[in-house]
Amino acid sequence: MNFDFIQPLLKEDKTKIILLVIDGLGGTPLDWGGLTELETASTPNLDELAAHGLCGLHQPIGAGITPGSGPSHLALFGYDPCKYMVGRGVLSALGIDFDLTSQDVAARGNFCTINEQGEITDRRAGRISTDKNKDLCALLKKVILPDIEVFVKTVKEHRFLLVLRGEGLSGDIPDTDPQNVDLKPFEPKPRSLEGVKTAALVTTFVEQAQRILKDHRPANMVLLRGFSQRPQWPLFDEVFGLKAAAIAAYPMYLGLARLIGMKPFHSNNTIEDELDVLENQWKNFDFFYIHIKSTDSAGEDGDFNRKVRLIEKVDQNIPRIRSLEPNVMIVTGDHSTPAALKSHSWHPVPTILWARHCRPDGVDHFGERACLSGGLGPNFPAVDLMPFALANAFRLDKFGA
Amino acid sequence: MNFDFIQPLLKEDKTKIILLVIDGLGGTPLDWGGLTELETASTPNLDELAAHGLCGLHQPIGAGITPGSGPSHLALFGYDPCKYMVGRGVLSALGIDFDLTSQDVAARGNFCTINEQGEITDRRAGRISTDKNKDLCALLKKVILPDIEVFVKTVKEHRFLLVLRGEGLSGDIPDTDPQNVDLKPFEPKPRSLEGVKTAALVTTFVEQAQRILKDHRPANMVLLRGFSQRPQWPLFDEVFGLKAAAIAAYPMYLGLARLIGMKPFHSNNTIEDELDVLENQWKNFDFFYIHIKSTDSAGEDGDFNRKVRLIEKVDQNIPRIRSLEPNVMIVTGDHSTPAALKSHSWHPVPTILWARHCRPDGVDHFGERACLSGGLGPNFPAVDLMPFALANAFRLDKFGA
Repeated sequence: MNFDFIQPLLKEDKTKIILLVIDGLGGTPLDWGGLTELETASTPNLDELAAHGLCGLHQPIGAGITPGSGPSHLALFGYDPCKYMVGRGVLSALGIDFDLTSQDVAARGNFCTINEQGEITDRRAGRISTDKNKDLCALLKKVILPDIEVFVKTVKEHRFLLVLRGEGLSGDIPDTDPQNVDLKPFEPKPRSLEGVKTAALVTTFVEQAQRILKDHRPANMVLLRGFSQRPQWPLFDEVFGLKAAAIAAYPMYLGLARLIGMKPFHSNNTIEDELDVLENQWKNFDFFYIHIKSTDSAGEDGDFNRKVRLIEKVDQNIPRIRSLEPNVMIVTGDHSTPAALKSHSWHPVPTILWARHCRPDGVDHFGERACLSGGLGPNFPAVDLMPFALANAFRLDKFGA
Repeated sequence: MNFDFIQPLLKEDKTKIILLVIDGLGGTPLDWGGLTELETASTPNLDELAAHGLCGLHQPIGAGITPGSGPSHLALFGYDPCKYMVGRGVLSALGIDFDLTSQDVAARGNFCTINEQGEITDRRAGRISTDKNKDLCALLKKVILPDIEVFVKTVKEHRFLLVLRGEGLSGDIPDTDPQNVDLKPFEPKPRSLEGVKTAALVTTFVEQAQRILKDHRPANMVLLRGFSQRPQWPLFDEVFGLKAAAIAAYPMYLGLARLIGMKPFHSNNTIEDELDVLENQWKNFDFFYIHIKSTDSAGEDGDFNRKVRLIEKVDQNIPRIRSLEPNVMIVTGDHSTPAALKSHSWHPVPTILWARHCRPDGVDHFGERACLSGGLGPNFPAVDLMPFALANAFRLDKFGA
């Protein structure tokens, strides 16, 4: 959906929309003939919502594409994920709640191992501990760049965040990480005039870091990738006319929401805590994005039964959400994370869109197979959810006379 | 469908295609668990057509978008409604059968009420009667513009059509209607060099109109919007190789069809009268667009039962159409008009495409839920209907070797 197309159609209303994202919701059976996690779970409340609403399966990005959490969420928020791209550096900053300014260039860093010829022998430095990582980041504070503030922040294990802050920086430089062993790290050659200054600074940073780390084998070098700056995107409120709140336990999701101007609310990592926030903020916003992380983690762990139980836990809380009487309620995932695959996957994501004037589609329970015959279709683009939600919330005028 | 793509594939045949548009066909149940208007109607003939044809639901414009009649019809005719946009002024002219020339700029006018400060207090002048409107339009004939012919024509109640005819006019000027009360009407500032002359003429028109109307409160001022010129679009015949007839009772639909070169046939407002025209013209054309208006009016009136009866009335006439032995027959609506909403809506529109070589899809009756599992899909773009029709009429060659 083109923002220029939808903006002239917006009209005001007092209707409220809830987008409940059960991370990694979609699944697959463990064996031929079996059920998926969602199909296995007992979900009487979601089944009722499905029976009264529209069902379907969305494709976050496109046919066969396994999305990362950044693009898949942007798609749910109505932002074309192939147009609005967040760099890895920026995503890393969001993930550790680092507040990027417009003067910053961020990169995702790895501690790695190089041999005496300078060739990479382990891109992850044997996955050093997070504590070790913290020690090394403290050492890297000694790097001095002229007129530039340098931040080196621990993420997890071998991963860190590098942020350079100063005038005239650019994210338009290539990775130093060759993504393979037996090669030397690349020098960051600028891709454009804008990148010249930043490339020189990064080269100096890497040289100093190598000197500082030389006796800290296996973590005796750094690799950098995804240089990027905080994007300047159209704000959710301006695009869709909705004052929006984001409720999540993990910084990455709140940071992503903040990038498009949603007001972030940090919560503990249980749905009950998140719904406390929802109830407290109910009067103050038009749109509520609620993020459930645990289902994705269970999928990533390959723990089918835990994912089933966590879906059931969400189901038990549906009546509490419905008692707020939202006008439109969407329940879906940002992508599939089948326990059978222990990772994000390309499988379309089961979805319910509930509102007063949904046309019945005959789907009477919530599951991947059931959703195939729903009114939203078996493969609809995730970016279509926002216009559907706006229509059902009576927030869109007629197009043309 | 890109016209440049389809044109080289066209081949001639003597096959005939009928597009029967039941305006506002799609609906929703009045209450949870109920049936839609179409599902309620007894439609044995449409059911048989559905059983032998392909079914599905089309999206006229895009996800969640409620279409006006102009764009939704263009989509059915295979014209991308986001590319081929008709201005409100031109649509108003079509609606009262005003024959626009290439020298004309048309605008939709409202009589409105302003206070002594010149601020709008009622954008519709209390919805004056159509008779009063005619008196005022007669008065506005006194407006004199240099070298320009001025037409002021009554539409209905507070609405009129303004047409300026002369050399070097342009529709590229903004509305004078601020779309809100407590504001003064805008002066039409030109948006481009092309618009300078027209903007000056419109300013003069408005000044003179205000002087003429000053003692005619509540209709003591005019608002103008949707300045536009008759578009120069590719003609239906050239694009699809089909000599086309349009049969309708309302001028707007005939005017729209005429814009793309269909031959318009005015009929009385009953399907029987329209089918008289169809039979008389059967030998002369390849493609017949037949427009049924009454179903949409019933939906707009919120009269569920009347809409049901009118759908049944169409159904009773299906055998008469089929006895002409068309090669392809499409039955659909231009958009949904659920009686529950008393307005056009965003809900996808039930569709049958019948032809000799449709692949069976298992749908055995015509209704919104039944169409969900049809071969055309639950959400296909309306513009796809024309290529499907051409294919089934054996009027498209193979693409590539």
